[in-house]
Order: sequence, then structure tokens, then C-alpha cells
Amino acid sequence: MFILIKNARILTLDDSCGEIQNGYIVIDNEFISKIGAGTPISGNYDKIIDAAGSLVMPGLSNTHTHLGMTLLRGYADDMILKDWLEKEIWPAEAELTAEDVYWGSLLGCLEMIRFGTTAFCDMYFFMDETAKAVEKSGIRGCLSYGMIELFDEERGNAEFIKGERLVREWQGKANGRITTMYGPHAPNTCSKEFIAKVKKAAERDGVGVHIHVLETEDELNTMKKNYGVCSVHHLDSVGFWDTRLPGSDKSSLPILAAHSVWMSEGDIKIFAEKGVTVSHNPISNMKLASGIAPIQKMIQAGVLVTLGTDGCASNNNLNMFEEMKTAALLQKLDTKDPTALPAKTVVEMATKNGAQVIDKKTGVLKPGNKADLILIDLKKANAIPIFDIYSHLVYSASGSDVKTMIVDGKILMEDYKILVLDEYEVMKNAHECAQNLVKRVKDKNKML
Amino acid sequence: MFILIKNARILTLDDSCGEIQNGYIVIDNEFISKIGAGTPISGNYDKIIDAAGSLVMPGLSNTHTHLGMTLLRGYADDMILKDWLEKEIWPAEAELTAEDVYWGSLLGCLEMIRFGTTAFCDMYFFMDETAKAVEKSGIRGCLSYGMIELFDEERGNAEFIKGERLVREWQGKANGRITTMYGPHAPNTCSKEFIAKVKKAAERDGVGVHIHVLETEDELNTMKKNYGVCSVHHLDSVGFWDTRLPGSDKSSLPILAAHSVWMSEGDIKIFAEKGVTVSHNPISNMKLASGIAPIQKMIQAGVLVTLGTDGCASNNNLNMFEEMKTAALLQKLDTKDPTALPAKTVVEMATKNGAQVIDKKTGVLKPGNKADLILIDLKKANAIPIFDIYSHLVYSASGSDVKTMIVDGKILMEDYKILVLDEYEVMKNAHECAQNLVKRVKDKNKML
Repeated sequence: MFILIKNARILTLDDSCGEIQNGYIVIDNEFISKIGAGTPISGNYDKIIDAAGSLVMPGLSNTHTHLGMTLLRGYADDMILKDWLEKEIWPAEAELTAEDVYWGSLLGCLEMIRFGTTAFCDMYFFMDETAKAVEKSGIRGCLSYGMIELFDEERGNAEFIKGERLVREWQGKANGRITTMYGPHAPNTCSKEFIAKVKKAAERDGVGVHIHVLETEDELNTMKKNYGVCSVHHLDSVGFWDTRLPGSDKSSLPILAAHSVWMSEGDIKIFAEKGVTVSHNPISNMKLASGIAPIQKMIQAGVLVTLGTDGCASNNNLNMFEEMKTAALLQKLDTKDPTALPAKTVVEMATKNGAQVIDKKTGVLKPGNKADLILIDLKKANAIPIFDIYSHLVYSASGSDVKTMIVDGKILMEDYKILVLDEYEVMKNAHECAQNLVKRVKDKNKML
Repeated sequence: MFILIKNARILTLDDSCGEIQNGYIVIDNEFISKIGAGTPISGNYDKIIDAAGSLVMPGLSNTHTHLGMTLLRGYADDMILKDWLEKEIWPAEAELTAEDVYWGSLLGCLEMIRFGTTAFCDMYFFMDETAKAVEKSGIRGCLSYGMIELFDEERGNAEFIKGERLVREWQGKANGRITTMYGPHAPNTCSKEFIAKVKKAAERDGVGVHIHVLETEDELNTMKKNYGVCSVHHLDSVGFWDTRLPGSDKSSLPILAAHSVWMSEGDIKIFAEKGVTVSHNPISNMKLASGIAPIQKMIQAGVLVTLGTDGCASNNNLNMFEEMKTAALLQKLDTKDPTALPAKTVVEMATKNGAQVIDKKTGVLKPGNKADLILIDLKKANAIPIFDIYSHLVYSASGSDVKTMIVDGKILMEDYKILVLDEYEVMKNAHECAQNLVKRVKDKNKML
């Protein structure tokens, strides 16, 4: 497809270009071929999008999700973490089928398209199903199988094989929209020997690693009790955080640390030195009363910080606009400084920073980059007036203001109409899967 | 109008009824005449709304706004409070005209209709203009003129006259949709003698009082330094918080305390004993780094807590769905307890609690109450699945899911179409007013 977007206000997020008040973008197959101010060049376009009244910007990157859990949206809320996991979430997850994860993932993709997320980093199980959903929906996904070793070598070997298989079968599929990572679950659910082995495999395969780190104070205390050091130092002792490939000076292997709430100054220093990327999940951290990640300090130390929603059971949606606003508000509150985490920084976290771990040819609108972008409707009451576009995006806009989405040069949603999925079929099937899942969990509880 | 809403999932918020899975509501002029399960009775309806796939619930009440400030949405962000007020907001407010406040207020009304708010409590200036906007837009507004005495008797007298005039001219207008309160600005901007005088006038006129209290630590420190006690005790010494009319045992005069962030246990006790209503504004409190109001403690002590967005300069929208989610998240974080402020409590704060200070015949759907209600679209990706309707409303729904609104028996928005205003005219005029305002502020700065 040869697409022209014209009459657009464009937020490129390219430092050398910035914002264009009235301009155009030419898309040639999956790439942006031209961006400019004023009237576009003439051409034999397959499609012309008139973006008058809209903002064109890079799509959002959600760097921590468990998409298969979308069926567990609102399954259990307002509970303490231990009860929530042990009494509700784990028993429900034990009943999840491949079909559930397929429809749950597709529902998640649909929601992400609606709310402006063009790319995401996922960790869960039945990942073939999530990969199929990504393939079908047209968005970009960086997938990992969540390996839970539980300090059991045999279990660890079986988990490793599943994680490795995902990488081997899906890396680069769907014209490169599907990429993969290894996903050792967390330092308190996997031994450091296992995690070190996973890291070696990631180096061998040239893919990144996605891991949960220091989400709760409980993890911090358990690690200190068991190993005398916290999770970050524990894994640092086996070189886990190093993002350089062996023999190279360049940071090229993404290590994506989700949550990173209970980080000490020393932990932050290690992340900054080694080039670790943090996925900040403020809504989930608040909802589960986990705490406040020291994001302002991380950024000052030079850590690359991105944003993620976490799974739908602890958020309970995939709306990155809510995540942006909450991230900004929470750092201001925590530091008692309203200048902390200003709007521009938050927008960068949600776009170009996230793109660094998913696809470096996205996250910034410039010629040569892939055409992953969204149109935000500015003809809305909450978009009047706009004095600063970053402020609008973070503090006033909502996910439902996203009217059009293009990923890899393909139009997924146009003027609020989903073009790539039968929206009602997805919602109907996901709803039925959720109903049946609840029934199975209830039946099992009766048997116990 | 004689309206039937059928095939509806209904959240009545009436303790004796609760939720109806498939039911109907009959509206006769401004009142609800019948609510029931199953098939509706036949009748000679002027209008039948098929609510299949929607939730019908009471409209939301936003109990603290400065609607005229809507034109200052995003005017200045990410600044410390003192600079923000002194260098940006106050100079801009000094240039606001009556016309600005009219279009800003109408823009605010439009945004509230879009996001499901049927009623609000406002404090600002040029209040005739806000009243006209309420009259035109069809929503319900409880208006107060913000009296800033600044410890100057002459200024106080002039301010009092303006506040009194609003009450006398507008109380009960627009078929009772417009009500009024007295609005002494805050204990650190008005003397307690002035505030006591205002209270007497409120008792005389049988209307409530809307005041800012303990928004910032700075207010707390200033009050303690100047008077030896905090704002709540300071005003308690002149009987300000008593909500009973003289000679009555019944709490009948609403005293609405906005923010109430820096409240001690003793302050909370006074509010509970006297029947003061709190307007909790979590987003504004986070954005300006003011702190966390002890809402969980207030509720446990028996204080009636409601929710408000504050003005658009410190939020930056009027979306009560964001306010509900943030309120729930913030108390969980603050108390380190994910069971704090559960979803049902938050929904009640945003509906029936708010209605207590605006119009007691609203906030709950039952026969005899006024027909102020909204339809929430449940055919959306973020509404699949729903295990608990309160959880959906607080943690996953968004303001843009509101598809239809009825206030005082009149349909203001139907199936996402605004019926009572020319939406584009409002946005265009508000946009132009904001542009001209900025120009005036710039011109003035040049002259200084």
C-alpha cells in the first residue's frame, strides 16, 4: 500500500524535527518514506487519509502485559495479593485452555488497537495462541513464554524447552511484527543458575529477556533473607543484567525488568550501568498496594524507563493513556514535586522508549522507520484548548480519542472502525470463554 | 416527555433493590415513575430507548469544579504550586471575561455530558455565565460565587454581595436544576468572622456552603502559625461546621469541604460529628503534589465522602471515571492495603453521596426520584468480561463509554449524539476565547 496522510498536525518525537503544525506523511509498504510540512507531493496513492483535526504520532508501546489474562479482567479485585493469587487467580489460570488464551489475546489486541497501542511485550503461557492473535490482529508483539522453574531442575528443563521453542518458531514472523524474548518469571520463582542458563540462550539466539523484578516488598525481604542480597544484586552476581553480547562493547540485548518497585540506589546504579530497561506499571502497583517505583531517580541515573499496564487482572484494562497520566501523577506525589516526570518525558516513555526494546525502527516518525502510528481526534471537548500537545496527551486525552491506527504500513482502524477483526465475533467468543472458564472453576471447587 | 427504557441492565444504587439484570425504567416528565425487572408495561410513550447491551445507572456527581477555568485546561503544567498560581494562573484569570467564562462553562458542561456527569458543584466568578451554561446545557449545577475576602472588610462586603446575589437570583432556576451555595474561598484567604457571617446567610437562605479546606501542607502550617490551630478547629470555634439549622436536630444544611487533604484524626472527628461532606479530588492533589487525603479513615469515621475533579487547570479534564479509578488506587497505595476503598464504595461516592449535597432526589434510581441517569455501553472490548459491575465501572470503564444521558427527564445525549448543544459551535467558540485570552495575557506582560 502506498498511503498519504495529509493536513496533519504531527508529533514526530524525532529530536531533530519535533512537531509539524500542518504536514504530511507518505507511507510506502511498511515504511515511512517521507514526512514534511505543508502540501504533500502528488503521487499515485492507494489511499489518502485527511488528518485535519487530528494529531498523528507514533503508536504507544505497552512493555508489560499478560495478554492471555484478559479473560480474567475484573475476575477478583480489592483483595490482598496473597489471597488474590492463591484463592482466585492461580485456580482460574489452572483452568485456562489454549482456546481461552487465543480469544483472550485477541480481545487484548482489539482493546490495544482501540486505545492506541501498536506494540507490546508479553509474558504468559499458551504463547502460540497469543502469537496467532498478534498475527491476525496486525499489531506488533514481543512475546515470551513465562518460565516458572520453582527451583526444580526437572521442571526448569521442561519450562526452558517451552521458552526456547517460542523463540525458535516465532521470532521474526508476520513480516517481523512478531519478535520474542526469553521470559524467566522472577528472581524469587527461579534459581539464579536457571536464570543464568536462560540468559546464555538469549545471547546465543540474539533475543532479549523479560523478567519481573522487585514488584513487592515481600520479594525484597525474601531475597534478603534467603541470599543476603536483593534480587538485582543476586542476579548481578551471574552477570544477568549485562546487555552487551559477549565480546561486544555495545548494549544490544534488551533486558526488560518489569515493575522494579523496591529498587535501592545501588540497584538503580546497576541498571543504569548495564543498560537494563525498566517497564514501569504504576496502576498495577497501586491496585495491589505494591508501592511506588522510584522512576524519577531511575531517569536521573540514566535508566531507560518504559510503561506497561500489566495484565488485565490487576489494572483492569490495557489503556496506556491511563498509565501515562498515573505515572506522571504518582511521581509528583512521591517526590512532593509537581515538576517531577513532566508530560513530554511520559510521552517518550510510552512511545520511543518502549520501541527500543520491541523494534528500534518504530517509536519515532521519520523516513526509513516503520509506519506504526496513530491519529488522535482533537475535535473533542476534552481537547479544547490545547496549549501544549504533550500535556494534552498525558493529562487530558483518553484512549478512546484514538481514531485511526496504522501498523507496519497497514490500516488496522480507520475513523473508529476496526478493519482487521470482526469486533463483535471477538467480544462474543471472549465472553463465552470467560463464562465457561468460571463454570469450570466452580465445578472444580465443588469437587474439592 | 413519557420515556421507556427497556432491555436494560440496571444498577439502581438503591439498597433495597440493587442490580436488575434485565429490566425497564419509565420516566414521566422529570421523574422516574417505575422501575422493574422483565418486560415493561405498555403505554403511550413519546420515546422508547432500547438499552440492550448497556448499563443504566445514576449519573455521576462531580462535587468540586471551577467550570470557568475550563479554558485554562493545560495552560500551565508540571510547575510548583506557587509559581503555577502566581506566574501563570492568576495573571490569566485576571484577563478572563464574562464571555470567556460562558464558553468555558459550556465547554465544561459538554465534556461532563460526554463523560457521564449529570450534576456538579462549582465555585468560581462570573457565575451568571456558568448559570446560563447550566441552563442551556440541561445538566444540574450547584453554583457558588467564590468569595475571596483577603482579610479586608471592604473587599469582604463587596464579595459577600456578589455571593448573596447569585443565591437570590439563581436558586431553584431551570426547573430546579440550578441550585446555589455560598462559597467562602478558604480559611487561609478569608477571616473566620467573614466565614461566620457567610454561614449565617446560608442558614437564613437555607442553602449550603462550599469551601476549600486543608488542600496543602502550606495551609496547615500557615494556620497553625497564625492561629495556633488548623483550619478545621479554627472554623469550628465559630460553629461553622454545624450542618443543623438553628433550633433543629436534623443535619440539613450541606457544608461541602473540598480537598481536605491534611486532616488530623481530630479534624475527621469534627467532620463526622457535624455532618460535613468532603469532596475528594485525588487527581488534582497528585498533580500539584499536595498529598493524599485520608479517605479510608474518613469513611470509617462516618464522614460522607464524594468525588470531584477540581478545575481543568489542575487535572486536566472533567472525567469522573478517571477520578473514581485514581481514588481507589490511591487509598490502596496509601494504606498499603489493596482491600481499601473497594469499587462499590467508590461508585457510591461518585453517585449517591454526591447527590446528597446537590439534590437528594437524584443519585439513586427509584420511583419518585428525578430521572438523572446514564447508559454505559457494554459492547466494548474493555467491557469483556464483566464479573462485577462496580469493578468494571471503577477499574476498566472510561468516560467515553457513556452513550446516553438523561437529566431531569430530558435526553441530553443519545447514542453518543449530543442533542442539546451544537457541539462544534461550543468547541469553536471556546477555542477562540482561549486564543484571545492568551493574546491578552501576552500583551499585558509586554506592557509590564
